Amino acid sequence: MSAPQIDYSNVIADVLGPGGIEKERLEGDLADRFAVAHEVVQARREAGEMGFFDLPGDDATAATVQELADGFGQWFENVVVLGIGGSSLGGITLREALLGPAWNELDDDARSFFPRLYVLENPDPDTARGLLDRLDLRKTLFNVISKSGTTAETMALYLVIRGRLLEVVDPEKVHGHFIFTTDPERGVLRSISAAEGVPTLSIPPNVGGRFSVLSPVGLFPAAITGTPVDELLLGARRALDRCGTGVLRENPAGLLATVLHAMDTEKGRPIHVLMPYADRLRALTLWFQQLWAESLGKLRGSEHVGPTPLPAVGATDQHAQVQLFMEGPQDKVVIFLSTEPGEDVPIPALHGDIDALAYLGGATLGGLLDAERRATTEALRRRGRPSVTLHVGPVTPSSLGGLLMLFQIATVYAGALYGVDPLDQPGVELGKELTYGLMGRAGYAPPELPDPDPRWYV
Amino acid sequence: MSAPQIDYSNVIADVLGPGGIEKERLEGDLADRFAVAHEVVQARREAGEMGFFDLPGDDATAATVQELADGFGQWFENVVVLGIGGSSLGGITLREALLGPAWNELDDDARSFFPRLYVLENPDPDTARGLLDRLDLRKTLFNVISKSGTTAETMALYLVIRGRLLEVVDPEKVHGHFIFTTDPERGVLRSISAAEGVPTLSIPPNVGGRFSVLSPVGLFPAAITGTPVDELLLGARRALDRCGTGVLRENPAGLLATVLHAMDTEKGRPIHVLMPYADRLRALTLWFQQLWAESLGKLRGSEHVGPTPLPAVGATDQHAQVQLFMEGPQDKVVIFLSTEPGEDVPIPALHGDIDALAYLGGATLGGLLDAERRATTEALRRRGRPSVTLHVGPVTPSSLGGLLMLFQIATVYAGALYGVDPLDQPGVELGKELTYGLMGRAGYAPPELPDPDPRWYV
Repeated sequence: MSAPQIDYSNVIADVLGPGGIEKERLEGDLADRFAVAHEVVQARREAGEMGFFDLPGDDATAATVQELADGFGQWFENVVVLGIGGSSLGGITLREALLGPAWNELDDDARSFFPRLYVLENPDPDTARGLLDRLDLRKTLFNVISKSGTTAETMALYLVIRGRLLEVVDPEKVHGHFIFTTDPERGVLRSISAAEGVPTLSIPPNVGGRFSVLSPVGLFPAAITGTPVDELLLGARRALDRCGTGVLRENPAGLLATVLHAMDTEKGRPIHVLMPYADRLRALTLWFQQLWAESLGKLRGSEHVGPTPLPAVGATDQHAQVQLFMEGPQDKVVIFLSTEPGEDVPIPALHGDIDALAYLGGATLGGLLDAERRATTEALRRRGRPSVTLHVGPVTPSSLGGLLMLFQIATVYAGALYGVDPLDQPGVELGKELTYGLMGRAGYAPPELPDPDPRWYV
Repeated sequence: MSAPQIDYSNVIADVLGPGGIEKERLEGDLADRFAVAHEVVQARREAGEMGFFDLPGDDATAATVQELADGFGQWFENVVVLGIGGSSLGGITLREALLGPAWNELDDDARSFFPRLYVLENPDPDTARGLLDRLDLRKTLFNVISKSGTTAETMALYLVIRGRLLEVVDPEKVHGHFIFTTDPERGVLRSISAAEGVPTLSIPPNVGGRFSVLSPVGLFPAAITGTPVDELLLGARRALDRCGTGVLRENPAGLLATVLHAMDTEKGRPIHVLMPYADRLRALTLWFQQLWAESLGKLRGSEHVGPTPLPAVGATDQHAQVQLFMEGPQDKVVIFLSTEPGEDVPIPALHGDIDALAYLGGATLGGLLDAERRATTEALRRRGRPSVTLHVGPVTPSSLGGLLMLFQIATVYAGALYGVDPLDQPGVELGKELTYGLMGRAGYAPPELPDPDPRWYV
């Protein structure tokens, strides 16, 4: 399969009913609106502001990453990524999708002697202590990922780990346990790298955190655990080709963005559920959540806009969230992801005398899972609740690369449709400043917080 | 600490600004509305419909569970729960909160020789095959949890596992690898149990799946991995005591339900974010999501009502969702959970010459994490965005039992406030029937699905 296919029939009024989109609009005003959005994106891309478009074609960087991972990287039993948000979610997504959720529990043979891969995101002392206490730090490589090198959470963990390493390895060799991924010229990690000779990979300046999965941010952790990064990029290039046109009906990323934007702004459906039917794509839903939320949740003039992405996993969430999706407010659109399993599992015909079990015998787990996806899609449709389905096929480096690229392109189209800048995140600055103030960073005054009011405390 | 404390100052108009709730209302109309809700809940409780209220006082069941776990259960190296939704989320929540997210990666010593604990929820063939291939099934106990014994996902996995066991153990001993948790009298698992002598725990008939965490559904997996279930129940009893009054200002569960309901129905904030600052409570956010979504997302007459719960984890999601929370639509309320770490981790003063790192030296990871929580709360407040904070203290069996009980009580209060039945889930039936039809279950006709329309497929 050359890239994800999108089935959007369940948003079309002919299929969905009155809450749907009139099909004529896809070649009328929605096509026109998308064509404008496409121009906006093209202009910024050509101005060099959207570096993520260039990553799939950057074979030189991919080769550098692969070489470093194949050589230096294979000296270690464990690799720990230190990063948060855009610096962690891509790597986690690739690990879970391609290696499965239990990679770190596999023995050396089952991992083909590739290292275990951990990610420390949160400065949660229980998590950090738990991990550092059980890893042999002498056999562990730490990949510190921060564009500026000032991310408080990541750098606090870096200091903790540096302190721990100084206790167990020759101080002259501490730098050999790090690899940095950061700005090519500037920033704290670049300075330390220059002073100490830490191997360092570059994040292109025009690639923001949440669009960095196909840069060394995501590629190095993938490569070091055995993923052929050239296949990831190949799939991304195919998606790029398919999503390069300004003709709405021919552009899957454009259709996704246009449909979701229209469902939010015209049909009162601001909650965009991403629901793969595959455990290994659970992490992808969190990556998408950041991408969609942080790119589109913005102040436009004096207006607060943006959809709320909501992760789900099928069939599991049929027993948690689908009641709400079926009977709750008409405020959601579901993006289903259909996949094919690596290897299906037959269900044996046992207890054939029990009606409630007999029908399962002879089927497969994958067949059941897919039947549940189709049933849930149809149940929602019968209640006038829209969905689109992306058909991913087997989850491979190539198909995943295509899916990641499609979502990123859809996001910048959606930014143009919503009329916001999908590349910035000004809303997080105040919280950072208040944190610096509370932590006593030089130049930041302690903030005035309201006194805890005992009247509102029980 | 005797139970979670709730700080709701940041929803009060005096503190939050014009989007807040006028404080007089807490002793006026909101207090009256809650008093009515309290009566509704009391009546159903007294009618025996809300069995979860009785679980914290059911010492006999707790003793049975503990005995089974301490005896029979300790013969095994691995325990695998087969369950989905209300049958899995409680057990996962207890495991992650009390044992930490990496329990299964610890060696025998670090686990004090308690078994590893896995949960198979989804009939995902990659997940199931991956797990079953690497466990020694001869040393594995399977806890099958389904009230009716007809849950398709769980029973398909049960059949697969039964088939696998028949290949590796004496057929006469297969029953010894199972423990069922099901209805006390009825259903498929009860029949198999009677025929084969499988040890079986009961779920009280008046306890629904999503309210079953303190029944054997959650208690057995907790007990078998070394959690003292009596402490869980003790904490739950304390919360029950604190949440037993019809006086709004004195009832933390009542305040939580009342504030969240008012924020949805009066202030246009239907998205309820649960955001603990502790990795080990990430699973709790999914448990809460099911509880809140499936209980409240309902058809009330011809009106679709109910809030949408949204999981988040601090500080991680400050780098993913907080941009949207700060600048996106004013449609959210955040419920922060503050906790104290088990053991804090000091940040060493290294790189003292670099300004952007120097302030971290001498602080702790826990201190940083808590500063981030306070900063995010305050940043939201300054933008007129409401939150409440539950102070949990250290995450112990007792404090967790209290928190779980508080959320469950808040949920049935919220059901009364929204005017829906928090105990049913009629919206999931259609999807089940369509699945049965697709799978060829006797008595279910194959459903008519719309043909895939190539016009809407790219």
